[in-house]
Amino acid sequence: MNYKMILYTMGKLLMVVGAFMFLPVIVGFIYGEKHVITTFGIPIASLFILGLLFSAKRPKDISVYSTEGFVSVAASWIMVSLLGALPFVISREIPNYVDALFETVSGFTTTGATIATNIEGMSKSILFWRSFTHWLGGMGILMFVLAIMSSNDVRTMHMMRAECAGPNVGRLVSRSSNTARILYGIYILLTVLETLFLLLGGVPLYDSIIHACSSAGTGGFSIYGDSIGHYNSLYVEMVIAIFITLFGVNFNLYYYILIRKYSLAYKNEEVRIYFGAIALATIAITANIVHLYSTVGGALRHSFFMVAATITSTGFATADITTWPRFSQTLLLMLMFLGSCAGSTGGGMKVSRIVILIKTGIKELKYLANPHAVATVKMDGKPVDNSVVRGATSYLILFILLFMISLLLLMFDKYTIEESMSAVTTCINNIGYGVGRFGPAGSFAGLKPFSKIVLSFDMLLGRLEIYPLIMLFAARKR
Amino acid sequence: MNYKMILYTMGKLLMVVGAFMFLPVIVGFIYGEKHVITTFGIPIASLFILGLLFSAKRPKDISVYSTEGFVSVAASWIMVSLLGALPFVISREIPNYVDALFETVSGFTTTGATIATNIEGMSKSILFWRSFTHWLGGMGILMFVLAIMSSNDVRTMHMMRAECAGPNVGRLVSRSSNTARILYGIYILLTVLETLFLLLGGVPLYDSIIHACSSAGTGGFSIYGDSIGHYNSLYVEMVIAIFITLFGVNFNLYYYILIRKYSLAYKNEEVRIYFGAIALATIAITANIVHLYSTVGGALRHSFFMVAATITSTGFATADITTWPRFSQTLLLMLMFLGSCAGSTGGGMKVSRIVILIKTGIKELKYLANPHAVATVKMDGKPVDNSVVRGATSYLILFILLFMISLLLLMFDKYTIEESMSAVTTCINNIGYGVGRFGPAGSFAGLKPFSKIVLSFDMLLGRLEIYPLIMLFAARKR
Repeated sequence: MNYKMILYTMGKLLMVVGAFMFLPVIVGFIYGEKHVITTFGIPIASLFILGLLFSAKRPKDISVYSTEGFVSVAASWIMVSLLGALPFVISREIPNYVDALFETVSGFTTTGATIATNIEGMSKSILFWRSFTHWLGGMGILMFVLAIMSSNDVRTMHMMRAECAGPNVGRLVSRSSNTARILYGIYILLTVLETLFLLLGGVPLYDSIIHACSSAGTGGFSIYGDSIGHYNSLYVEMVIAIFITLFGVNFNLYYYILIRKYSLAYKNEEVRIYFGAIALATIAITANIVHLYSTVGGALRHSFFMVAATITSTGFATADITTWPRFSQTLLLMLMFLGSCAGSTGGGMKVSRIVILIKTGIKELKYLANPHAVATVKMDGKPVDNSVVRGATSYLILFILLFMISLLLLMFDKYTIEESMSAVTTCINNIGYGVGRFGPAGSFAGLKPFSKIVLSFDMLLGRLEIYPLIMLFAARKR
Repeated sequence: MNYKMILYTMGKLLMVVGAFMFLPVIVGFIYGEKHVITTFGIPIASLFILGLLFSAKRPKDISVYSTEGFVSVAASWIMVSLLGALPFVISREIPNYVDALFETVSGFTTTGATIATNIEGMSKSILFWRSFTHWLGGMGILMFVLAIMSSNDVRTMHMMRAECAGPNVGRLVSRSSNTARILYGIYILLTVLETLFLLLGGVPLYDSIIHACSSAGTGGFSIYGDSIGHYNSLYVEMVIAIFITLFGVNFNLYYYILIRKYSLAYKNEEVRIYFGAIALATIAITANIVHLYSTVGGALRHSFFMVAATITSTGFATADITTWPRFSQTLLLMLMFLGSCAGSTGGGMKVSRIVILIKTGIKELKYLANPHAVATVKMDGKPVDNSVVRGATSYLILFILLFMISLLLLMFDKYTIEESMSAVTTCINNIGYGVGRFGPAGSFAGLKPFSKIVLSFDMLLGRLEIYPLIMLFAARKR
């Protein structure tokens, strides 16, 4: 294993995060918050000192294989979470370190589950940092590092693959650093667009930036206890619902549209199924909840928002779904596992992975009915590589195993089986809210420290799609 | 598709079931129950008339391939359930036909979920038939037909494979009808042994036979509202716990022991993991519940019984597990999915299938860490055929899909998500009890007819391991 290269990349990454931490400092200055110097000064200094130490010497051997890719990603995310939690603790707005770590992991992994019980009492700079972790984690922190590093500096494909979501990640252009730049460009563009649309709706600048960052990462941290429901504005809700839906689409699609290869964009089966699932679920839930709201329009409004917020794993809320019929709740629960498209910022198991799995199941039925027929799994009209099918099934197996282990570990806490199950579901799929005491209006504050660490680990497992973290602990020296 | 051969086999099967229905008639005569003539007379007559019609002409083409195997098994089980429900309706002890069908399917599939609310008020002959369906369904009804048919009558391997549980079924001896005879011989021997052991403990003959039949099929129907707890006898509980554990072992193992091939028996990895899981779960639960019972012995007694009853999917109960800590409840829930060994009468997903799945997941991790290493999935020290691995993963996928569809369909009933989830879990894994209103002391009577049909279908899906039922509806003419 090329440890020197892993450390070198991690060093660059820590400095990048350190640089980004100047943003909440600026926010603090604008709002006259004096504590920002100490709150962010110490973390920024630590990030830069460690970053310079790690990346002091550029290694001679810059080769990075899949193991190095996985280990870099896992180690970087853990390191960044550990240090990113410091501002919360130093400002004493989340004085307990385990709580702060939970909140930071929840931020970077774009989960949006919170231990805060009084967000509206937190300072502007801290709230900014909290939502900005969503933006950083959404597209991937390492991906950002790759985008700014010189393209012949590292063999980066394996790192990109390890951080990106979905069963199959390809380069858009021949150099992966250029791919990273294109993806981040689209990401920034969409975030700016959403901010502008929110401003047009009369939302204050600070609020607009915060919610655009949370939307972009499909995270879910808001600055209000009642989330997006606070504005009680159809316009704001629709802007956010549409943008989170767009952030749940495979970013390659936008690239194809930008370079006018429309046929490539249209051929994408995953995206069509993703929009189909949103449409179907919205209609089904609207029909199921229409009796709760005075009009079809009102039901449709809440239904579309909650479907978008759930399938993309954003976890914003405009309605208390615990009052909805069980059919709607169960459908939303299933959307949590389905998730959004590969190569997007959304969570869950990813539409393409689920589609590959279902097609694999059907293939076996065909094979049993007629063992002589040759059946293959196809996506976008092309046969899917066997290694991708194998990867998807193994992912499902490991996912279930880790789900069960987490659930057992949570049993030592005081929550019901249903609540615990929803906590693991929401964390491992990076959604942000569960049922009962973990509902949209609830908080994860009541959990024991041990449970918080288990769930933090689940959030990382979900965001990094299991393999990197297991590799970090299981990979042997080569 | 060879429809004639499917009908012919089904005809034989209906007559076999008709013949077995004379047993409850005898029970009725002994206890002077006058209603048995009409109660069982009409069903017996229907079974024989249909049976004779179907099997009147032995087809010239006796070839049976996998599709025919699956379709025969699915059609036979549905037919037998439809007719086996008649005695309950005619005797008016379960006057509603959908209820009677649910109870019969629950019997044949060895689930043991009941809609009866007052079993102690039912007649001896009906209770006997109810438990006897467990015995018939446990080893497989078609398997019995194969055992008594002349060995060159049909190419039976595909039927045996379709009815037997587990990812990989082999013949013990070259002729499959001989294999069926050996397996049924062992089955009868074990049932008689358990009856004798219960008699030795002072249990009345009628009770002993009933509980031996329910144990043999790992079903769970008792004749008392408080199940095996009724006897409050350590001896009875241990006899039953040990026998259900034995019925959950792959029957091939007993054959190897009988022919003194001890090394073959010892090499069986699945059986060792099965016993290991029972031991571990028993110890963990004992430690977790010891504060509820005065002594370690008392805790161990209930822990072992409930672990055995759950992992084998028998569903007998001696304790109200809803009073146990959540850790124990969750562990038992997981054992429900694990299930017992392939080729046994137990339910669940089967130990070997889960082991193959876990090894497949680990293999992928090894492959990701080092793509050049050749990794294979091994069982009993031998590489597992790729088709078996593929079958196990497809099974998992279809299982999850059907589980979710069933759960959504149950949402139109009045039960909570947790209760509904437990109902589907208990039915699809053929256990017999869930949580809340479906707990060990509860009943499935309150469900809407639609939900009862969904759950009946789930029980059949679980017992026949999904493929046959889908084939029945999806297979096209060849």
